Amino acid sequence: MKKTALIMAGGRGERFWPKSRKNLPKQFLSLTGDGKTMIQLTVERILPLVDMEDIYIATNRDYKALVQEQLPNIPDENILCEPIGRNTAPCIGLGAIHISKKYEDAIMMVLPSDHLIKYNQMFVNTLKQGCELAEKGANLVTIGITPDYPETGYGYIKFLPEQMDGHAYAVDRFVEKPSLEVAKEYLATEQYLWNSGMFVWKVSTILDNLKQFMPDIYNGLQVIRSSIGTDDEETVLETEFTAFPSESIDYGIMEKATNIYILPGTFGWDDVGSWLAVGRIRKSNEQGNVVNGNIITVNTKNCIIEGTGKLIATVGLEDLIIVDTEDATLICEKNSAGDIKKVLENLKICNRDEYI
Amino acid sequence: MKKTALIMAGGRGERFWPKSRKNLPKQFLSLTGDGKTMIQLTVERILPLVDMEDIYIATNRDYKALVQEQLPNIPDENILCEPIGRNTAPCIGLGAIHISKKYEDAIMMVLPSDHLIKYNQMFVNTLKQGCELAEKGANLVTIGITPDYPETGYGYIKFLPEQMDGHAYAVDRFVEKPSLEVAKEYLATEQYLWNSGMFVWKVSTILDNLKQFMPDIYNGLQVIRSSIGTDDEETVLETEFTAFPSESIDYGIMEKATNIYILPGTFGWDDVGSWLAVGRIRKSNEQGNVVNGNIITVNTKNCIIEGTGKLIATVGLEDLIIVDTEDATLICEKNSAGDIKKVLENLKICNRDEYI
Repeated sequence: MKKTALIMAGGRGERFWPKSRKNLPKQFLSLTGDGKTMIQLTVERILPLVDMEDIYIATNRDYKALVQEQLPNIPDENILCEPIGRNTAPCIGLGAIHISKKYEDAIMMVLPSDHLIKYNQMFVNTLKQGCELAEKGANLVTIGITPDYPETGYGYIKFLPEQMDGHAYAVDRFVEKPSLEVAKEYLATEQYLWNSGMFVWKVSTILDNLKQFMPDIYNGLQVIRSSIGTDDEETVLETEFTAFPSESIDYGIMEKATNIYILPGTFGWDDVGSWLAVGRIRKSNEQGNVVNGNIITVNTKNCIIEGTGKLIATVGLEDLIIVDTEDATLICEKNSAGDIKKVLENLKICNRDEYI
Repeated sequence: MKKTALIMAGGRGERFWPKSRKNLPKQFLSLTGDGKTMIQLTVERILPLVDMEDIYIATNRDYKALVQEQLPNIPDENILCEPIGRNTAPCIGLGAIHISKKYEDAIMMVLPSDHLIKYNQMFVNTLKQGCELAEKGANLVTIGITPDYPETGYGYIKFLPEQMDGHAYAVDRFVEKPSLEVAKEYLATEQYLWNSGMFVWKVSTILDNLKQFMPDIYNGLQVIRSSIGTDDEETVLETEFTAFPSESIDYGIMEKATNIYILPGTFGWDDVGSWLAVGRIRKSNEQGNVVNGNIITVNTKNCIIEGTGKLIATVGLEDLIIVDTEDATLICEKNSAGDIKKVLENLKICNRDEYI
């Protein structure tokens, strides 16, 4: 069966400020040190499996030009612009009807645009297994990550260790972000994986599930589908999509559906959730510093320093994140990385939109 | 007797990098938060006592334009440019012969250009007392500062508590920078003051002392004196001054001369020796931060942040010095301020003169 992919690239993350901005979110940044942006790496990674013309990018109008610039080989009609963010269920539905308009049926992989995969060939192999499972009759296939620690920022998926099909396990249930205590219990059972937000299914299957569990969205999607390629396409999309409830695919479908399988990913995964991730991902020097730019360090250890052409000199520092851009400089203690959003709140309150 | 002043402004300090540079040393920077530079404040402070036309600035050729720009009312012929730095004895001698060329005799105050005085009227009163002492027959008068702590970076002056003349005490001896242990002993005796590098004497007296203790310099100065106002002035200065040994007034004269008096300064003094001093001098906010520029602080305490127009955001920081300039940014832990020179050493080794 034809293999297609929907890459979700509508996120507006603030955690890479000041390098990320409202008009340049994380998926369009180069953070891994190889000069390629997160979304470019995402596309490159699946090319052994999916033709360029079968890769769809779901984003919003503000980022369309960025997608065109960074991914010039993606056909223009494959760049799907949501009129407004409505979480993952409507986004995936929009991708599904576009693919269903092109192919009678097809395998559809759903992938985030801003995660890091370490072993690309292994990743492709896992996706292939997902495609086979989906084609031979699994309802929905998801890819799970074996937890390194009891993270409270991810959803978890409970699997049934005794029900194995090839490399996949039957899913018992999807659960939302747990407390630390609960996360620790999950890890102790050895039956929970992190929900990576990566899925594989047939287009016909996900549409059936939408029809069953989210009929309002399904019906709106059919109206949008009829308008594709007509003069009314944009107006209809605007009206119908805006009327959708904001709902995640996890809550809307995955937590309710049956016959779900999970493939444990062994390919090395990082959601690159903050500047701290850059310290994990990139090679550090002898002093434990990860530096990029025009930098002089004196007695400086375990710092992440991301500069531009301007000279940055550090003296006697430890465990800091320093990010310099054309118009703003961030200096943040590593344990306080979660508070970078407070800078943005402050900027919003003061209407200093030029920095957001 | 006519009162004159020599302000020494040839220093090339590196401790305020990156704001201070080889072509913009500390005395030409505004560090106190009132927009005036250190040398402007120095001149302003003595105007109740000395006419503008009797204020001499000793500097070097590289800084002549800066002096003219920052002190436009100082007569051009009062800007004395040393061809090369030869420490304070030749510098003071050069000032003395220029003043002696203008007046038969005069009171000469010698003042650094880059110290901070808190109580200006009290400072002027102390200088006045110095002038009276010098005029009525004290050989040399110096101004001492009661130590706050056993500083090892200053010279000390031992006075004789039982030999008082007005507000002044007879000096027993000048001593060079002590070890911490010795400095502690000095403080315990209650007979040592910090050497502030400020002096008052008659021009005729300092020339007599130069003749007695540094005859080579004295003789050279006489040659320079004859050339003042002639076509050969610059050539003669170049030849004679360059031949002088590099010698401080403390070692060359003060440690050897007799009949020296010291006036304890009660006017509040700070030599503004590093960025740390800016934290002492300027008003801090509730979080103990001293900030200047376009700054957002989140959970940031006891930091010194000196910016330009560019946004600086700090998150979770404590006890840091952050200085941003057009082409370079310094981030330095307060206790490591002494290591800022290592950045400059590194820049010198790498021939990155544009940053020095």
